[in-house]
Amino acid sequence: MATGTLLPVSRPMRGFPCLLFLLYLNLLYCQQFIIPFKAPSDCGVDEFFDISSLSCSRCGSNQRQSSTGLSCVCQTGYKTTNVSPNSVSITCELCPSDRPAVTKDGFGCVRCPGSVNDEGKCQCPPGLILVERDINGNPLNEPRCEVCNNNSPALSIANNKGDRCERCTPTFINTSCVCPAPNVPAGGLCFPTGILSTNVNPSVNYAQLKFSVQSAWFVENLYSSSAACLAYSNLTACQALGNMCVMNMHSFGGLSTDACGLFNTVYKSKAALSSVQDISYWRVNLPWLFYGDEPGLASRVLQTEPVPTVFSFRGRNKNTEIQLLAAVYNVRGEFLRWEQAGGRNLMLCPEPTPKKASAFSFGTAYEESCDLSVVDLLVSHPEPLFYDVYMDLGGGENRKLLPLPTLVQNQQYNGRFINQDDMRNWYLSRRMFLVDTLGGREKSVTSSPKVIRVATSVRIRFQLVPRTQEGQIFPPLMTVTYTDLLITDINTQTVSVRFAMDYEMDQTEARAKTDTAIGILGGVAVLYSLLKTVSWKRRIASPVIDLETMLKFLLFYSGDLANVFFVVTVGTGLYWLIFYKAQQFVSVLLPLPSQEEQFVTYIGCAFALKAVQFLHKLYLQVTVDIFLIDWERPKSKGNRTVQAHGETKRDPSPVSIWRTYFVANEWNELQTIRKISPTFQIMAVLFFLEVLDFSNLALRDPMATLQRSPEAYTPPYSLILRYGLAATLWLCIGLLQVIFFTVFYEHFVEDKMRQFVDLCSVSNISVLLFINRCFGYYIHGRSVHGHADTNMEEMSNNLKRESESLCGQRGLVPNSDIQTFQVSITNRLRLQYDRIQDSISRRNRPSRLMDASTANLSDLQFRAYNTMNHFLGSIIDHGHPDMDYMVKEKLTLERVIGMEFMEPSDKSYFYNDQAHSFSNVLFYGNEATLLIFDTLFFCVVDLGSQNFVLAAVLTYVQQMIFRFIRNTLGRRNLANKTLVDQRFLI
Amino acid sequence: MATGTLLPVSRPMRGFPCLLFLLYLNLLYCQQFIIPFKAPSDCGVDEFFDISSLSCSRCGSNQRQSSTGLSCVCQTGYKTTNVSPNSVSITCELCPSDRPAVTKDGFGCVRCPGSVNDEGKCQCPPGLILVERDINGNPLNEPRCEVCNNNSPALSIANNKGDRCERCTPTFINTSCVCPAPNVPAGGLCFPTGILSTNVNPSVNYAQLKFSVQSAWFVENLYSSSAACLAYSNLTACQALGNMCVMNMHSFGGLSTDACGLFNTVYKSKAALSSVQDISYWRVNLPWLFYGDEPGLASRVLQTEPVPTVFSFRGRNKNTEIQLLAAVYNVRGEFLRWEQAGGRNLMLCPEPTPKKASAFSFGTAYEESCDLSVVDLLVSHPEPLFYDVYMDLGGGENRKLLPLPTLVQNQQYNGRFINQDDMRNWYLSRRMFLVDTLGGREKSVTSSPKVIRVATSVRIRFQLVPRTQEGQIFPPLMTVTYTDLLITDINTQTVSVRFAMDYEMDQTEARAKTDTAIGILGGVAVLYSLLKTVSWKRRIASPVIDLETMLKFLLFYSGDLANVFFVVTVGTGLYWLIFYKAQQFVSVLLPLPSQEEQFVTYIGCAFALKAVQFLHKLYLQVTVDIFLIDWERPKSKGNRTVQAHGETKRDPSPVSIWRTYFVANEWNELQTIRKISPTFQIMAVLFFLEVLDFSNLALRDPMATLQRSPEAYTPPYSLILRYGLAATLWLCIGLLQVIFFTVFYEHFVEDKMRQFVDLCSVSNISVLLFINRCFGYYIHGRSVHGHADTNMEEMSNNLKRESESLCGQRGLVPNSDIQTFQVSITNRLRLQYDRIQDSISRRNRPSRLMDASTANLSDLQFRAYNTMNHFLGSIIDHGHPDMDYMVKEKLTLERVIGMEFMEPSDKSYFYNDQAHSFSNVLFYGNEATLLIFDTLFFCVVDLGSQNFVLAAVLTYVQQMIFRFIRNTLGRRNLANKTLVDQRFLI
Repeated sequence: MATGTLLPVSRPMRGFPCLLFLLYLNLLYCQQFIIPFKAPSDCGVDEFFDISSLSCSRCGSNQRQSSTGLSCVCQTGYKTTNVSPNSVSITCELCPSDRPAVTKDGFGCVRCPGSVNDEGKCQCPPGLILVERDINGNPLNEPRCEVCNNNSPALSIANNKGDRCERCTPTFINTSCVCPAPNVPAGGLCFPTGILSTNVNPSVNYAQLKFSVQSAWFVENLYSSSAACLAYSNLTACQALGNMCVMNMHSFGGLSTDACGLFNTVYKSKAALSSVQDISYWRVNLPWLFYGDEPGLASRVLQTEPVPTVFSFRGRNKNTEIQLLAAVYNVRGEFLRWEQAGGRNLMLCPEPTPKKASAFSFGTAYEESCDLSVVDLLVSHPEPLFYDVYMDLGGGENRKLLPLPTLVQNQQYNGRFINQDDMRNWYLSRRMFLVDTLGGREKSVTSSPKVIRVATSVRIRFQLVPRTQEGQIFPPLMTVTYTDLLITDINTQTVSVRFAMDYEMDQTEARAKTDTAIGILGGVAVLYSLLKTVSWKRRIASPVIDLETMLKFLLFYSGDLANVFFVVTVGTGLYWLIFYKAQQFVSVLLPLPSQEEQFVTYIGCAFALKAVQFLHKLYLQVTVDIFLIDWERPKSKGNRTVQAHGETKRDPSPVSIWRTYFVANEWNELQTIRKISPTFQIMAVLFFLEVLDFSNLALRDPMATLQRSPEAYTPPYSLILRYGLAATLWLCIGLLQVIFFTVFYEHFVEDKMRQFVDLCSVSNISVLLFINRCFGYYIHGRSVHGHADTNMEEMSNNLKRESESLCGQRGLVPNSDIQTFQVSITNRLRLQYDRIQDSISRRNRPSRLMDASTANLSDLQFRAYNTMNHFLGSIIDHGHPDMDYMVKEKLTLERVIGMEFMEPSDKSYFYNDQAHSFSNVLFYGNEATLLIFDTLFFCVVDLGSQNFVLAAVLTYVQQMIFRFIRNTLGRRNLANKTLVDQRFLI
Repeated sequence: MATGTLLPVSRPMRGFPCLLFLLYLNLLYCQQFIIPFKAPSDCGVDEFFDISSLSCSRCGSNQRQSSTGLSCVCQTGYKTTNVSPNSVSITCELCPSDRPAVTKDGFGCVRCPGSVNDEGKCQCPPGLILVERDINGNPLNEPRCEVCNNNSPALSIANNKGDRCERCTPTFINTSCVCPAPNVPAGGLCFPTGILSTNVNPSVNYAQLKFSVQSAWFVENLYSSSAACLAYSNLTACQALGNMCVMNMHSFGGLSTDACGLFNTVYKSKAALSSVQDISYWRVNLPWLFYGDEPGLASRVLQTEPVPTVFSFRGRNKNTEIQLLAAVYNVRGEFLRWEQAGGRNLMLCPEPTPKKASAFSFGTAYEESCDLSVVDLLVSHPEPLFYDVYMDLGGGENRKLLPLPTLVQNQQYNGRFINQDDMRNWYLSRRMFLVDTLGGREKSVTSSPKVIRVATSVRIRFQLVPRTQEGQIFPPLMTVTYTDLLITDINTQTVSVRFAMDYEMDQTEARAKTDTAIGILGGVAVLYSLLKTVSWKRRIASPVIDLETMLKFLLFYSGDLANVFFVVTVGTGLYWLIFYKAQQFVSVLLPLPSQEEQFVTYIGCAFALKAVQFLHKLYLQVTVDIFLIDWERPKSKGNRTVQAHGETKRDPSPVSIWRTYFVANEWNELQTIRKISPTFQIMAVLFFLEVLDFSNLALRDPMATLQRSPEAYTPPYSLILRYGLAATLWLCIGLLQVIFFTVFYEHFVEDKMRQFVDLCSVSNISVLLFINRCFGYYIHGRSVHGHADTNMEEMSNNLKRESESLCGQRGLVPNSDIQTFQVSITNRLRLQYDRIQDSISRRNRPSRLMDASTANLSDLQFRAYNTMNHFLGSIIDHGHPDMDYMVKEKLTLERVIGMEFMEPSDKSYFYNDQAHSFSNVLFYGNEATLLIFDTLFFCVVDLGSQNFVLAAVLTYVQQMIFRFIRNTLGRRNLANKTLVDQRFLI
């Protein structure tokens, strides 16, 4: 075979041809680097598993596989000789027929004193020992079976291997190792008769599976543990008895003799002794398993006295660490150790350590769950461990522990589940286990279990002391739910386990405050809505209270109530955001998800009501009355009204309509202009929430950091925090935008409203708008130059003259430059207006640019248009003494409450209005409503989907749709009211 | 004390006052449920730890704490009497002075034959045994010290406890249990002298820490294992020797006597024997540790022969499961078991099982890392386990295994790291361990270690066979990196470990194809750019090739080259997306992150070049020459030109400028209109990527599903897939939008371009645009009614007449309705145009709405404006025979290559252009460039940040900025060129 050395000891010395040959060989072998799979169990009885080559090799003659399968041993009746240290190559030799058996060590042939076992070795009767060598190690010629002297003082019995006499375990009868009747031997001990009925119930009840199992462990140990505990106060026996009660999930009945019944019997018998650690439920020598059964004890234990330790999220006294300690016992009742409770025991799911650690940071809502394979559980938990869990209160030398009350959800009393709903019926307990694969073994404690019981849900709930400012908590409650799992196929079965930490506080006070706020503000809103309704009634000049008035009131009220809900919910969200995330000593804890429902309802109300208000405003806006008054008069005299018979072509100089077109076109473009950029708004909110990770502030933990490491645990989101965060961010960015646009942009770049007013002035066109029947807005656009319908040069000159203040001011009143007014007109004026308007606004059809057939405006309409133009012009020019008007300043109070005190009975009133409030009929003047509506829309979508990106996309789509509706309907309305063809509104 | 029963056996019987009393007591106790913490170690020497009450209790008289601390034992010199089964209450009795010692079981007093040990029990000299009882268990009056007969046939020595003679372990000298000189006793065995020098080097070299440790384990076992392996081929000894070599990370030197050196010695000595499993590197009885040292062997092993198993992602033969098996040995060389390699051994990080399982799904790039606490490692790995890792090829009965070649990164040869860079120097090996806490123990094998060695990085690399269509792979390579960790403070020290699965294929072919594609297309792009340059040269009517031409060529070329890069990268990304995610049999694997660099460079090039093209286009657009030709003539005769001296007020009927304002205003609004809605584009892409989770398609695994369970493992992203996905999605949505807008929206809602052309026609204004010096666009807007400057009624009538086809068609040529043309003008015409334009376009200043001082247009300008209006009007009316033009149809080829074949030498050419290609000077006509630029911008930001939301936000901001720039500059240009005041461009 290949003779090259593997390792390069003599690398430079090797000949080249040899190298080539080796390469060639290796190349061949490269294709052969595949080996068959063999396991020790694959080898035959005359083969052994060669651990070097991982294959089966044949044993020598007269040999067979050893029990491990990794070596060979001599066949029965053959002794081992000539052994070499290489354990593989032993040789075997047949024993002579007079000494047919083999010694225990396999190296000698002997004649047996008693029988020969299957392996060809000597065997003595039970209780006797086999002696093959004398005390000095010399082999006897013939082995002997000897009896052990079990009387005092020898007190010996045969050891387990049956090759030596040893002192028997301490027992109750000091004179002998036997337990004579009527004493009862049990568990290696000997009990006097009568201390405990031997009629015990060694079954484990699997209530979920509706059957009991006669557990081998209970059969072996229940009676002996109870008896040893009762009669002799054996500490481990008492613990073992307690453990069996825990394995039965603390359930017991009236006079049962199952594990808990027996524990109860022992417990009662110890009543005369003083209790342990001054806790009346903890009897001497016994484990503490139960709190008392007094009604209401649970709430007294859990909600009376605060724990003498305080939690604080930051600052010098920062204390967020929850330290849990557990006293660990094994199933035999032996104390194993004190152990940190947490990642390594209570939490069965395999999660990275940093994640697990965050479960024990106070205030971090933690929840983990996973599916565990049953086969893994069987391997890792051959027998149950029992945990008495305490909270470590610290304190250096005098370290104190607080026992954690435990609520076993499955605990039954007389077959009834008592720990599930009503806290007054709860029976608190102590001690728990995680996985019990032992109780379900039926035949023997080493057989495979029929059922296993797993603590599938462990939940520790912390409750804050109400009105604490210092982070005081009540004793935490640990709730354990066990699940019984019938073993059918261990390789595929899984069990889902959960671990959770909850933090809660009494929310009734917070809720009451919220409700009070909504009540009070709701009342104010009623008043405000009433005021609005009254104002509206005056503005439509109708004194009758009819159904429409009620409806209008409800519409106003829906808007105000939506604001109330919005303010309260945003305030609440912000309150939680600030107080929870920024508190030093723990004084508030977030509402649990189940406590958030009312809050979500409020948000829903706010959104629904706001939507009603928004749609109402939208409707008002797209039905507003508008007319453009052209002040331009034809330049050739004596031709004021045009003869409307199609022969106007020869008319020397009609007034060009293009200025009206221009103004209408611009007005149309203003419809959906907003004070903010809604898309930028969405993008900015997304940027903060998703890119700068502000969304992490809504996590249910007290940390106020934005960046989280990807390895760290991510708690679930709190809906309230999410809403508070999103709404606040939305409002803040909106506000910043409004400030930016009003303070900077409109001053230094462009102000669309100002531009429009200027345009009116330059184009010699006034705009009259009615939002209500007798209330509206007037933009005075009469050119200071008298004419605007002129060529570029004159336009330029006019502008130049105006900029050099060579002409009058633009205002309606001489020597003022106030061009915008709120108008409150008399009923008479309105009636006249309606009369003319009726002729103009014939019901219209949809119009499209290239579809000229819809452009059929009748002559009647044009005449009406001209009449209206003339009529309104003369009104403004004070040309109708019976419909005259008065310009006045609005009172501050009038401005604030939005109502005019003077009723326009015989004179109309024009109120100076430099704030461009005509934008109220546009999106521009309703920014607050739109912003709140968008905010609520965004938040509602997010609450439903927990996805800010989706909320952003849908908000964008919503804005797009409403903008499209507003534009289309507004354009149609404009075309109808002003007779400007829709194809010029582009 | 309280006498109530705890459990409700007699609940109804209890008296009420008693109940109250109990409640009161319990209430008191509620405040007392706090216990002090005591551990067994806190109890004094005369106390024991009461496991029931978890407190320290005092022992009885003459007693002291037992070694566990949980019970009491008698003090030295006292025997135990009167023991009760309650192990706590023993009593102790002083032994009489003539029998001062206590028997081993503690129940008797005896006089010792030899000395008395510290515990007051008898002790015999070494090698002798203490006999206290006879064979039948009767205690001897006086214990004896006996000698064991170590000669044949007894061959006995004292056992460990020193109370019995037993047969000595098989050794080489069959006649006695002693190892007489000159033989060498070692490890319980006896070696003949001379088989191996006893001068071995039992040190472990910690190269990273720059020191060696004399390891207690090596001191104890290195010589004996080597000798037993060499001399007697002891299987476990050979494995143990191999393990020591592995613990030294396979490192060795020329003639060293460390573990690997000794292994090498033994290896060479076995050269004459046949190799195991036909693998020449695997010698009989030895573990297989090394592949050969032939140069290039690594690549032959790893890249020659495919593994005889195929992987397939879907379909009937779906096979994605990678099965790894490991033969596990302990440090003593014993074979423990075959074990599934993976979650439970190779991957040290605690991760949920489903996550770990996905590591072994073929094609899923897996990487996990975590920090492990050293104290945990010490507990969980008291001694190292050794793994021989195989890949299970399956095959039912004839299951085959493929040994995984292992590359130990730390392996040294003569102090040189050989396995780090060049594959030709690699020495492949076999067998690895994960955590070795044993080798670093210096004094004894039970002392705490000075150093531990951890396999901090385990990486398995799969390589696809090139050009396979069937999912064939080469043997996978396992790369292991060990880290040495000096133990300083085990409680705080951590070590970071990693596990990764990589999949790669040879990318040279793909890269070559990409490069070829770029080369070829780049060549085509050169030609196309040359063509464009030539066309441009014609359009500016300049035949000279100067620097500007070169620059222009480069600008054109940058756009075309950007398209080439874009097409190739998108194609590549899409290729990987489709072929990787949709393949059935594995035929392609994604490039590794390190192989993606070139791709990213290409994207960077595409973006940079596209940006250049975009800026160039932007510049051209904002400097375009535009003039609005007003066809309206004054209605009063004989007054064609207005006397420009400010006294035009009395001029009876100037042509109103408002139509020009209207058209200019609309043109201004068209500037940044696009064929798609860019914001909707962003939102839609975000929606698909982040809400519908399309981004999951870019994960490095073969699954094509969008929804992933939150518990499942999330592989890292592939940059190529991310780019391919984002770019494709962006283009698809863009294309859908273009289709929607051109096919549906512009036909049924509004077509801005059509509207503008109509507006021109209705307003009697033509638009002439020059994008190059002698090339531009003309929109013929002469009203078919002769006049447009009229009132509403006539406008309406005109429109009605036109819709009823009562007047001529709108086209430039009679009886045609083609209104839009591409114009190619003669140099002469352009010179004339320039002359007039010069007077119009005085360099202008920024203009603001309320700042009227900038409106100072000189009379000269108005005159020039009127001249230009008249000049261009007469040109269109064929009024200048020397500058006449001809309307013609463009040839198809001319359209395709974008160049005019006819040079406008003495006649200008007007080409019919119904496609509204005047939009080329707007964003509208450059949608492709903008869309690609946006796509690249989005992708580049995403590649840099791996954050689609950020990319979306920045893309929005970028669009906003460029739109603002385009609007502002475009508006200023328009104002300059047409003399329309900026305050009318709103």
